[in-house]
Amino acid sequence: MLSTIEWKNDNVVMIDQTLLPTQEIFVTCSDYKQVADAIFSMKIRGAPAIGVAAAMGVAIGAVKSTAGNTAALLAELDDICDVIGATRPTAVNLFWAIKQMKNLAYDNASLSVSQLKNVLKNRAIEICAQDISINKAMGKNGAQFIKDGDCILTHCNAGALATAGYGTALGVIRAAHEQGKHIEVMADETRPFLQGARLTAWELKYDGIPVTLITDNMAGYFMKKGKIDLVVVGADRIAANGDAANKIGTYSVAVLAKEHNIPFYVAAPIATLDLSLSSGEQIPIEERSTDEVTHIAGKAIAPEGIKVANPAFDVTPASYITAIITEKGVAQGNYKENLKLLAT
Amino acid sequence: MLSTIEWKNDNVVMIDQTLLPTQEIFVTCSDYKQVADAIFSMKIRGAPAIGVAAAMGVAIGAVKSTAGNTAALLAELDDICDVIGATRPTAVNLFWAIKQMKNLAYDNASLSVSQLKNVLKNRAIEICAQDISINKAMGKNGAQFIKDGDCILTHCNAGALATAGYGTALGVIRAAHEQGKHIEVMADETRPFLQGARLTAWELKYDGIPVTLITDNMAGYFMKKGKIDLVVVGADRIAANGDAANKIGTYSVAVLAKEHNIPFYVAAPIATLDLSLSSGEQIPIEERSTDEVTHIAGKAIAPEGIKVANPAFDVTPASYITAIITEKGVAQGNYKENLKLLAT
Repeated sequence: MLSTIEWKNDNVVMIDQTLLPTQEIFVTCSDYKQVADAIFSMKIRGAPAIGVAAAMGVAIGAVKSTAGNTAALLAELDDICDVIGATRPTAVNLFWAIKQMKNLAYDNASLSVSQLKNVLKNRAIEICAQDISINKAMGKNGAQFIKDGDCILTHCNAGALATAGYGTALGVIRAAHEQGKHIEVMADETRPFLQGARLTAWELKYDGIPVTLITDNMAGYFMKKGKIDLVVVGADRIAANGDAANKIGTYSVAVLAKEHNIPFYVAAPIATLDLSLSSGEQIPIEERSTDEVTHIAGKAIAPEGIKVANPAFDVTPASYITAIITEKGVAQGNYKENLKLLAT
Repeated sequence: MLSTIEWKNDNVVMIDQTLLPTQEIFVTCSDYKQVADAIFSMKIRGAPAIGVAAAMGVAIGAVKSTAGNTAALLAELDDICDVIGATRPTAVNLFWAIKQMKNLAYDNASLSVSQLKNVLKNRAIEICAQDISINKAMGKNGAQFIKDGDCILTHCNAGALATAGYGTALGVIRAAHEQGKHIEVMADETRPFLQGARLTAWELKYDGIPVTLITDNMAGYFMKKGKIDLVVVGADRIAANGDAANKIGTYSVAVLAKEHNIPFYVAAPIATLDLSLSSGEQIPIEERSTDEVTHIAGKAIAPEGIKVANPAFDVTPASYITAIITEKGVAQGNYKENLKLLAT
């Protein structure tokens, strides 16, 4: 598997996901503004990957700083964190990673500038490595829900490309595949940004896991035909009550799954939990550019000047979620209690 | 409003719907094979428009025939009907129109070749004109379900472009608009062929009816937010029990509407009823080329060689349908009985 994001010679290198699957191009970010732009423009996307990118963005901001003393560096870091924090409002992992880096910096205010730079750089690299081991643990915890012969529907890309590697929802699928279960995947294409068609289909094919691409509006048809045994998706933010924000369309899939008595699982790291929010109603939903809907690969597919809505996420209420799979275990039933237990 | 399809100087002229909304190009079909190809390649689409095109296809086949006597012309017509009948399997209007033309031909077997040609030509022109008046009657019958201030979700294009003019589902919306009701429409883009983005958005904007374009997977989000008051869609075939085949994704919309207690209406002419089928299970579902999913406007959006499913239609069970609106009246409740009453 290719590296989604990597620290390399004091640069941040990532595969440009806006160009997949037709081009495999790596971009090199040599300062924090380039990292922030890569997050905003979705060269890198997926909640855990955004978290890793944010940590590396703060680290590269520190490393490239010309601050003459630690106090000046800390002041600069405040600005850097603000810029990176303004890129995408829904994924909590972004804010989690920024907070980790900021706290680490202030905890080490007594170090010299060059020492502090090293501490931050090493922590970013560690967050990246941890993400992969977290996903492997999550995969093991989730694979129990997948039986030999199952067909799994997934939405968007909660895969290796959405993380530092291995994936969350696709990590669960990978783990089942590695256990020798004969499974197949149906991937929703996930309009408007087509993460399913471009990324999920690509990375599963790359790993030799059987995958069929469908348009988002076919999920109900295949559920009614009895072709889908379970649904696994990722999440960008999970409230204390288990309500989960994820890519637009996830909620529709959850409603369809309920109507057909198909289990619906959410796989996400503990860092995705935002226990400060009592319900999903409080999760901010990012509204993205209308061009994503009206143009595909630069071509207009709608009349000029048409009014368009483009909410990038929706919230699936906990009542539709069979279980939430994390690296620390599985929450079911009373999410408020069980998520809190997992988080502590 | 532009003419969707027209008989002009013994040619069949239609707007090429594969090029909308960026180009408004009319194609002239001078023989029945060109008409059949236009139906197959979806230059013209929408169940009622396909019916009109089929009638005109049979008529132009007759008019351009070099048969020396009526028996030879009738034999030729059998072949012509077979070719046109093989274009698209789901829309019953295709077979309805072919049957109308064939019966008319055999009923007039005593006429001369040139007389029979005229009879068929006039009937095709009449079917086209009838379609518009049918849609206006349907619109009146359906507009009662739309209140001032309503926001209506529609899927695919059951509009003027799907008919000879005015539309079925969009005819209901047009009628409410003409009655002075302040309404707005949310149009699903309708992947893979994007009839909503390309055609519904275009024709509503053209008529000054407020329309917002959304991707298919946003419908649930806006229903949950309380933005959608009712759903109106068309149909390609309706079984005796009220099960309705329509564009892929319609069933998902119906499930979402049920979950949110939103009325779900189907608007279709009597010709769409296929009372020979006891349930929707018996409606054949057309599987179309995988290219429609993997490519948009000629650009690849998925990895090469990926496995793809592309069912063009799904069946919405009658239990999800609040009412079926036809030109002869509205069926509700016991569809088996009430559709039969309307059809006779």
